[in-house]
Amino acid sequence: MTTREIQLDKSGKLKHFLSIEGLSKSLMTDLLDHAETFTSVGERISKKVPILRGKTVVNLFFEASTRTRTTFELAAKRLSADVMNINLESSATKKGESLSDTLKTLEAMQADMFVVRHQDSGAAEFIARQVAPNVSVINAGDGRHAHPTQAMLDMFTIRKHKRHFEQLRVAIVGDIAHSRVARSEIHALQILGVPEIRVVGPKTLMPAEIEKLGVRTFNSLEDGIEKADVIIMLRLQQERMRSALLPSGREFFNTFGLTEEKLRVAKNDVIVMHPGPINRGVEIDSRVADSPRSVILQQVTHGIAVRMAVMSLTMGALSV
Amino acid sequence: MTTREIQLDKSGKLKHFLSIEGLSKSLMTDLLDHAETFTSVGERISKKVPILRGKTVVNLFFEASTRTRTTFELAAKRLSADVMNINLESSATKKGESLSDTLKTLEAMQADMFVVRHQDSGAAEFIARQVAPNVSVINAGDGRHAHPTQAMLDMFTIRKHKRHFEQLRVAIVGDIAHSRVARSEIHALQILGVPEIRVVGPKTLMPAEIEKLGVRTFNSLEDGIEKADVIIMLRLQQERMRSALLPSGREFFNTFGLTEEKLRVAKNDVIVMHPGPINRGVEIDSRVADSPRSVILQQVTHGIAVRMAVMSLTMGALSV
Amino acid sequence: MTTREIQLDKSGKLKHFLSIEGLSKSLMTDLLDHAETFTSVGERISKKVPILRGKTVVNLFFEASTRTRTTFELAAKRLSADVMNINLESSATKKGESLSDTLKTLEAMQADMFVVRHQDSGAAEFIARQVAPNVSVINAGDGRHAHPTQAMLDMFTIRKHKRHFEQLRVAIVGDIAHSRVARSEIHALQILGVPEIRVVGPKTLMPAEIEKLGVRTFNSLEDGIEKADVIIMLRLQQERMRSALLPSGREFFNTFGLTEEKLRVAKNDVIVMHPGPINRGVEIDSRVADSPRSVILQQVTHGIAVRMAVMSLTMGALSV
Repeated sequence: MTTREIQLDKSGKLKHFLSIEGLSKSLMTDLLDHAETFTSVGERISKKVPILRGKTVVNLFFEASTRTRTTFELAAKRLSADVMNINLESSATKKGESLSDTLKTLEAMQADMFVVRHQDSGAAEFIARQVAPNVSVINAGDGRHAHPTQAMLDMFTIRKHKRHFEQLRVAIVGDIAHSRVARSEIHALQILGVPEIRVVGPKTLMPAEIEKLGVRTFNSLEDGIEKADVIIMLRLQQERMRSALLPSGREFFNTFGLTEEKLRVAKNDVIVMHPGPINRGVEIDSRVADSPRSVILQQVTHGIAVRMAVMSLTMGALSV
Repeated sequence: MTTREIQLDKSGKLKHFLSIEGLSKSLMTDLLDHAETFTSVGERISKKVPILRGKTVVNLFFEASTRTRTTFELAAKRLSADVMNINLESSATKKGESLSDTLKTLEAMQADMFVVRHQDSGAAEFIARQVAPNVSVINAGDGRHAHPTQAMLDMFTIRKHKRHFEQLRVAIVGDIAHSRVARSEIHALQILGVPEIRVVGPKTLMPAEIEKLGVRTFNSLEDGIEKADVIIMLRLQQERMRSALLPSGREFFNTFGLTEEKLRVAKNDVIVMHPGPINRGVEIDSRVADSPRSVILQQVTHGIAVRMAVMSLTMGALSV
Repeated sequence: MTTREIQLDKSGKLKHFLSIEGLSKSLMTDLLDHAETFTSVGERISKKVPILRGKTVVNLFFEASTRTRTTFELAAKRLSADVMNINLESSATKKGESLSDTLKTLEAMQADMFVVRHQDSGAAEFIARQVAPNVSVINAGDGRHAHPTQAMLDMFTIRKHKRHFEQLRVAIVGDIAHSRVARSEIHALQILGVPEIRVVGPKTLMPAEIEKLGVRTFNSLEDGIEKADVIIMLRLQQERMRSALLPSGREFFNTFGLTEEKLRVAKNDVIVMHPGPINRGVEIDSRVADSPRSVILQQVTHGIAVRMAVMSLTMGALSV
């Protein structure tokens, strides 16, 4: 079975959410439409809907990420699910139990959904291949492979501001090589019909054969964001800055950091995105991050709605 | 007051759940019957019942155990209770507060139930002797003394497969000396009328005067499980394998590890149990653990239902 | 804007709860009256009311305090809110994100309330000045500045026992210099009309110019608690005992520890309070702590009700 076959059931509905690759445009559009209905939930006096009441959602985090875990926990609680947070760095695996046994045990506790964050590419799919038919798996970031809910919330944010994808020029800037976010974005933008996707960064942070994905590469920020409608800044991992790949955050900022001045070459109504947490003065200047062009905080808000949609759809609690 | 008197109220109903010792057969049977009604809750679309709605359950873990804590947390949430997890290794006791003061403080917050895990034998009873009359205490494992909910879920699993206890031959295999599970199992099996209980393990892991409990001891696995209806494998603590008691997990496996081949001397319809997490290739061979004879994952599922029953009954939320 | 202006909205209602200073007597009395209605919730079979159902309360703890966090978590859950615990020592700030960005991100997740504990004075107010208009901030202790919910629960406890504040003699004993509790108590007692407030402690633990707050200072326990109606013992921080300020807990106990014998100079119906956790044999003798004069555990119970009132009022969920 391919990833595509794993994440859809026989009638083509979402069963797991592992990767953007292989999703159809109509399924992605449906997902965005459903997320739209959930944005109003966050604005209501009571932000709770009973859609997943009585369901057990397990956050399986093999890699710490308070921010991502919090958004999934909030999304699940607003759907009225019961949430269990299990940090597997500090848990059963320590006792020498295999991942497979840990999973089977959690399934036997009648968990309905696993939200999986893992340092290894393919971990969420590995888990989805093992779980019982009634269990859904959501990929909350696996190695350098994918971060599909991040990509979907970004698509949601782009659609909010630009309405249509068909005439956009989108630039993704930063450490493309190590970014699961970038990979998922590129797939999502292509499926939704964005005609021009650019990846922008230093050669050392550009993966080999990236052009095969159908994107244009730029090693100059000014060239890369010229006339862009959307700029997606990636987070520079501090760990990598310390390694030989990059001499310092300051040096990166000088060449690839987004400033008001550099931004002038983009379109007037450009929006600036970032998955957060931002490194001010490294990827992005504070004036840009706090300007009206920045939609970074909107992304966070949309992230809850999009995750509510993904959770509801994979659980079959909404009809597409 | 004896333990028996502490855990029952004046009318003989369960008030705390500290130890199997001293429980009557009818009370245990009632508990198993109630657990039966809760197994269906786990299979419903909404796994929540309002039995403990508005109650506060505090998981007081002085010893880390993600698995046990998770099962109690799930059971409490499915009963609609509010759950507070308090890890007392890292909490008030650090500030020099006595256990007694910590407990009184939690009681003053109007906690209704304490689920207690402690490295010292007798800790749960010590706590039950101190709490206010309206508070229930559940022993989630205390030192080498008892793990009564584990024993009850095992009894539940045996009854599911064998229906009656009166003609069974049950073998408990492994580190009998250090196992609170073994002690609780032996009491439970005796009360429920199992005529032949065997304990099987190396002499170094067999407690002195174990025969006084009315069991037969075996130092050979093959002899111990001969014609057994039920085999309960105990978890070998890695810490003890490192000590002088046992040279290595490999060596243990050669003599006491359960393999398909050794299993041939047991009855054809034998069931194999293990409290988990299993050490594959130490106590048990993977082929046995994953075979149809293994009911290890069913034990996990039953654990939720049994803990829901124990919580409901001690809180007086169900009538026996 | 002054602190007073920040924590009240334009119509004079509580918006945040940052400091006792500047609150009116009528607002404090209203708050105590509302807390009164919540004490009955803790005694009901179901301790839950739907007042904050669908609201998201975030416990932002920059400084660990299981006890305080637990009381706020319980209060929020009994109001039916969803609670997120975020320990910011181990979270995003590690990744180099600024506090301000962390806050904006949590706000973007549509959090409705931040309960803030911080080692720096003024932190809660700093946060309140930044949040969106619909978000409330509760100070759960900031540096040496304030711990206003602790002061309110103490006022509640005093009122329960003494009914009126107007004729009381209240002694606050211990490490006045480093105590945010003492500062908040002094303000609360003055606003509620207590005519005689005494602070009692060694000169090394007495802040400079404390008399300017309108209190009388005593360096002898026996003099300080003479004819007192209420004695509030402060917790002696173990860290400070290790420093040069105080030679040892034992020595402190000899001069400032509250014993039955020393207590004889107070009024017959004196009540003894302590914010907990108590250091038996340091600030207070066990016989005093466990005597009928001690209302220490009642303070804990009242703390839940008072926090429920503060949360409800700041969220505008109750009309004052």
